[in-house]
Amino acid sequence: MEEAWSDARLNTTRRGLLAGAAAGGAGALLPATAAAKRRKRHRKVDVVVVGGGFAGLTAARKLAAAGKEVCVLEARDRVGGRTLNHKVQKGVIAEVGGEYVGPTQDRVLALAKAVGVDIFPTYNDGDNVLLLNGALSRYPATPGLSPDPAFQDAILTSIGQFNAMAEDVPVDAPWKAPKAAEWDKTSLETWKQQNLSVTGSHALFDLACEALYGAEPREITLLYNLAYTATAGNEKTPGNFGLLVATPGGAQESRFVGGSQRIPQLVAKRLGSQVILKAPVRRIEQGHGRVTVHADGIVVEAREVIVAVPPVLAAQIKFAPKLPQAHLKLLKGITPGKLIKWEAVYDRPFWRDAGLSGQAVSEVGPANTTFDNTPPSGSPGILFGFVGGDQARKFAKLSRSARRKAVLDNFVSYYGAEAANPKASFEMDWTQEAWTKGCPVGHTGTNVLHRYGPQLRKPFGHVHWAGTEVATYWSGYMDGAVRSGEVAAGEVLKALRR
Amino acid sequence: MEEAWSDARLNTTRRGLLAGAAAGGAGALLPATAAAKRRKRHRKVDVVVVGGGFAGLTAARKLAAAGKEVCVLEARDRVGGRTLNHKVQKGVIAEVGGEYVGPTQDRVLALAKAVGVDIFPTYNDGDNVLLLNGALSRYPATPGLSPDPAFQDAILTSIGQFNAMAEDVPVDAPWKAPKAAEWDKTSLETWKQQNLSVTGSHALFDLACEALYGAEPREITLLYNLAYTATAGNEKTPGNFGLLVATPGGAQESRFVGGSQRIPQLVAKRLGSQVILKAPVRRIEQGHGRVTVHADGIVVEAREVIVAVPPVLAAQIKFAPKLPQAHLKLLKGITPGKLIKWEAVYDRPFWRDAGLSGQAVSEVGPANTTFDNTPPSGSPGILFGFVGGDQARKFAKLSRSARRKAVLDNFVSYYGAEAANPKASFEMDWTQEAWTKGCPVGHTGTNVLHRYGPQLRKPFGHVHWAGTEVATYWSGYMDGAVRSGEVAAGEVLKALRR
Repeated sequence: MEEAWSDARLNTTRRGLLAGAAAGGAGALLPATAAAKRRKRHRKVDVVVVGGGFAGLTAARKLAAAGKEVCVLEARDRVGGRTLNHKVQKGVIAEVGGEYVGPTQDRVLALAKAVGVDIFPTYNDGDNVLLLNGALSRYPATPGLSPDPAFQDAILTSIGQFNAMAEDVPVDAPWKAPKAAEWDKTSLETWKQQNLSVTGSHALFDLACEALYGAEPREITLLYNLAYTATAGNEKTPGNFGLLVATPGGAQESRFVGGSQRIPQLVAKRLGSQVILKAPVRRIEQGHGRVTVHADGIVVEAREVIVAVPPVLAAQIKFAPKLPQAHLKLLKGITPGKLIKWEAVYDRPFWRDAGLSGQAVSEVGPANTTFDNTPPSGSPGILFGFVGGDQARKFAKLSRSARRKAVLDNFVSYYGAEAANPKASFEMDWTQEAWTKGCPVGHTGTNVLHRYGPQLRKPFGHVHWAGTEVATYWSGYMDGAVRSGEVAAGEVLKALRR
Repeated sequence: MEEAWSDARLNTTRRGLLAGAAAGGAGALLPATAAAKRRKRHRKVDVVVVGGGFAGLTAARKLAAAGKEVCVLEARDRVGGRTLNHKVQKGVIAEVGGEYVGPTQDRVLALAKAVGVDIFPTYNDGDNVLLLNGALSRYPATPGLSPDPAFQDAILTSIGQFNAMAEDVPVDAPWKAPKAAEWDKTSLETWKQQNLSVTGSHALFDLACEALYGAEPREITLLYNLAYTATAGNEKTPGNFGLLVATPGGAQESRFVGGSQRIPQLVAKRLGSQVILKAPVRRIEQGHGRVTVHADGIVVEAREVIVAVPPVLAAQIKFAPKLPQAHLKLLKGITPGKLIKWEAVYDRPFWRDAGLSGQAVSEVGPANTTFDNTPPSGSPGILFGFVGGDQARKFAKLSRSARRKAVLDNFVSYYGAEAANPKASFEMDWTQEAWTKGCPVGHTGTNVLHRYGPQLRKPFGHVHWAGTEVATYWSGYMDGAVRSGEVAAGEVLKALRR
């Protein structure tokens, strides 16, 4: 497995990420074997939470605050789910998973505030770089639209069309949209072919999809995209596709001081021994008003359970009695995205000297989009490239050195020769993580949402569902995970009062 | 004088602002009279700094750090220049002067960090309101462009044209631009007439000018506007008109926790007795390698002087020997803007419930633009309207109750009936402040910049110049003030080594 690596100069880094990998991929097998050798622990609590990401920990936090005894069972040896702080050097981390936060994402912002994690603006000064139709150009990062007026129109018109259609999509039931059946038969590829004609707009649309969903337009239905658009808002603010792709004013506006993973780490710290690591859940049995959750090394009895893992992993848990077929089909139909983050560390963010923001949009992959991931102190300089969808599929087949060369070639073409020699680099391919299987979010193809969507939040006996895919706002984001955890905890508190 | 007031329910507030007024307008006369009755103090220092705003205090801070003895002479009974924290209620302030900060404004951000003042994002969720061509519409605050494609084009094209022309304008010498003579004969009004034709674009251009400069397009030359565009960047990032008008990603992106005035207050606190309040400078004499600065109540001898007050006030100081005619013409030719901030306090920011950002753009004045000025805690709700240029001229002639009615009518048309009854309100008209005379910045009309601009930063003997109007980046902003103070301090340190 090669989900992450560092070049020779940063061995501690390599150990750091490999440790993470062992707890992920390899952990799928090892702890089970080890557990078999010793007697399983037993616990009895009010609520078991499966998964120690943002969703599960938020639910546990809320339940604990309400005086309930909880037990969070986490497969890995760390909390944080799809967020991961990677140590770059003493006092410096870089996020190799989810990292951004923006306006209307008020639940994750409230959680961050509650545990004392501040935000700072994503670097957005100067010009972005655009490589399209064979030409490299610069355009101001604000307003962040392409320099070509025809292109501006195409982008803003598409955003406007998505927003207008999304108005008819209920955030909690996209399958009830008047045109749900039609939209769930239409792929985004078809929509693109029918609606975009400006030269280069197809390439731009593809790479936007790859960065946003870790998938190609052909893999996603229009309904899914509109549901995603509708949920890019909150109770007060209608969803807006523009927020998904915008840096300032949008979902990439800010970052968390010290890294996003600090939030779940701090929540878990307060929950103390109520969080159990290296305890992947294998089986959930229910009957006679009780639930028994079997994990490696531990069996926990509870009155209610919240499953707060990605759908693809929830589908791996054995349920007794069995999950309804429709629910299982839904879980299996939500495909995790393929999105690799490849990061390079330099002495300083040299591109800033040239008035460049570190944001690139390019028809040439594998790293079709990049961001400046430098810490708030301004040193060292860190750049990352997103490699998504088909690009990620091809990329994963290359050797480590070929991958490195391919991304650095991109970086050099965007930011000049100085980009060729980072002092360290590392990458994270979440599809290789047994306890995640893909990033940033699970998407759906033809007819999944329309046909099986109604199962999404339906409790199964004493089993409730959380996780960013279940959220009705900011699904696919940390904020959505937090919201889903809050909702599930509320549901469980109600069930416990019965 | 009525530069500020509160309604009857908030008398402490009223006293607060009236106190500020006394130290400003009334202070122009009173301390002089009082001073005549007592013997003047004398002091001898290395450097006198005239003015305790961001520029002067930054210069003093830098000089003190270099081991120099400084004396800041400030006319008012407070520091902070064009920033002012107005106490709304216990623990809550609202800024009635400059408040925003954004990307590339790295000097004021560094200063804020150094004294421990954090930033937070300006509220920008949901939709902005547009009242244009007789119709009220909503459009997403991100990307923040009008909903009409023809309009999008007009706005983006104008920004692009300004940016392209500004590339030929040296930030430290706009009068050296190849087309400086032509551009300084052309008013922005003429440019508007020749370049904008979309229905409503003239009204939009006018109100943008009013909010940005506190002036009408006819009062500003194209050269001045291009110089302003060129300076909207930093050493690494080319100037961009888009930054001037943008909220996220632009100059309105963030706000300072606790209010912008905290920064100068904290700097002044560290300088301690080196800052003298209520000491307006009347006369600066130089000769035999020494400078004598005469202020009300104090005479200070120094080796060098930094004048860090708005040009219009610098022009009031008597210099012996006299300032060169060209320099005096420049100082008198930089006209302070007319920009009134009218603010209303509500129990909560109710407009957010309707998915509104609190940002409005409207052809109907007096408050043609508004912003949500709610503190980071989210309570109370505060809205302010900008009343600028001709609108401000007319507004100032109305009675207090007519002004209140006029702005609240605007607020109601943008945000609904709930806006009609704020629990408190206050306004600030900086043109009525004797020690400011206008906001946000001084602009220039025909031929001033081209003819007298070269005087702008030219030291006059031992007298050096600072203040946001003197800055080569972010002139007109707190950041420019800080930069100008840093540059002037550097100049003085060099002079002292001679």
